[in-house]
Amino acid sequence: MHHVRFRDPAGAVREGTYDPETEAVAFAGETYALDDDAIDVLAPTEPSKIVCIGRNYADHAAELGNEVPDRPLLFLKPPNTLASHGDTVTVPAGKERIDWEAELAVVIGEQCKNVDAADAMDVVAGFTCMNDVSNRDDQNEEQNWVRGKAFDGAAPLGPVMATPDEVPADASVELRVNGETKQDGHRGQLIFDVPTLIEEITTYLTLEAGDVIATGTPEGVGALADGDTVEVDIEGIGTLEHTVRIPE
Amino acid sequence: MHHVRFRDPAGAVREGTYDPETEAVAFAGETYALDDDAIDVLAPTEPSKIVCIGRNYADHAAELGNEVPDRPLLFLKPPNTLASHGDTVTVPAGKERIDWEAELAVVIGEQCKNVDAADAMDVVAGFTCMNDVSNRDDQNEEQNWVRGKAFDGAAPLGPVMATPDEVPADASVELRVNGETKQDGHRGQLIFDVPTLIEEITTYLTLEAGDVIATGTPEGVGALADGDTVEVDIEGIGTLEHTVRIPE
Repeated sequence: MHHVRFRDPAGAVREGTYDPETEAVAFAGETYALDDDAIDVLAPTEPSKIVCIGRNYADHAAELGNEVPDRPLLFLKPPNTLASHGDTVTVPAGKERIDWEAELAVVIGEQCKNVDAADAMDVVAGFTCMNDVSNRDDQNEEQNWVRGKAFDGAAPLGPVMATPDEVPADASVELRVNGETKQDGHRGQLIFDVPTLIEEITTYLTLEAGDVIATGTPEGVGALADGDTVEVDIEGIGTLEHTVRIPE
Repeated sequence: MHHVRFRDPAGAVREGTYDPETEAVAFAGETYALDDDAIDVLAPTEPSKIVCIGRNYADHAAELGNEVPDRPLLFLKPPNTLASHGDTVTVPAGKERIDWEAELAVVIGEQCKNVDAADAMDVVAGFTCMNDVSNRDDQNEEQNWVRGKAFDGAAPLGPVMATPDEVPADASVELRVNGETKQDGHRGQLIFDVPTLIEEITTYLTLEAGDVIATGTPEGVGALADGDTVEVDIEGIGTLEHTVRIPE
């Protein structure tokens, strides 16, 4: 199953079903095209927190000159970072380098703590697409990546949430900028897989229904320019598209 | 004015007024003692995020062997970290060093972005007490302090929120463990004052009504032992008390 959360023409928030063949969103007998101006596509969840993983693809760690970590590198994006499919994300002004990072994102289905990896898929509601928009100017100077990763709009998320059965074990994770492919990784390349991440995170933090784990980005990150259109396309899920505004 | 948020005997959440002289909480004609078993004292707010400041007292930076930063060192505690007055905080198991850190915490009163320091006190609802409970074992090995600072219960907060007029510019910030004074700082020692912090944070992140800024801890941090009782006592606000459980 695929789901899209949206605001209907009357302003009500609905959890619709999504047909990847026709790109149609349906709720209670009404059907809309995903790009219908009459609806507002929303992020598929309202997380209390997004727990992100750094350096979880070996080739990406190498491209930024980093070692592969011996346990998951965790960082946080609070709810102010959320943006949706079709949004224009305006990043902090005056930065030299704002990067894209395509990520497979896990949506948690129930409140959980101390989850064993063997049982971890039981707490997963589904998967969606995320762009971990990154302000390298500040990230490279900070102990904790708050200015670098937690600014408003730093987590475009969605639009489709796919149940786990829809997403292949080696699903492709692609990113295009203005139609040109920049990242082309696979879920199977994750150093720490989804169950391992859930076990490690819930050793320390309770996850709530709707919380998100962003599993890290494959190699091929690079700098965005003002006006660029970004697409994150994950096999079995769908395509997240947004534009970016970079004020001087 | 002083406020205490609590769950009344019928289970309803109430925002009561608090009388520091009598330690009585009042709502709609009913009055309770703060330590009345018939009520549950809650954290004074339900923040979407707690933005914390590291090394904001020169003496504390020195005691941990750190330089004073040239701009505020920011880190994040998500909502799972909240704990309340009277709670027993159970920290992650098997850690060698769990530290106390008394902090003056700012409660934001309205959604805000790009706030000038000159106007920053207009967005402050009040001040409360926080213990920034810190797991040094992991903090010292992490890029981002997630295991170290964002575990469940890492932010005991409250119980009293005092409006800004109640809190002296050089209010004392004290912490006691089992009745013995361990930290004895003053608000006037903050390297970056509250308006400066609000301007810097809101350059990057929108703050929501109820969000919290924890302004950093004075010198005198140290390791907690299983069963310790901690009090954070800030002049003009009141006293936060909780116990700690440190599993082996």
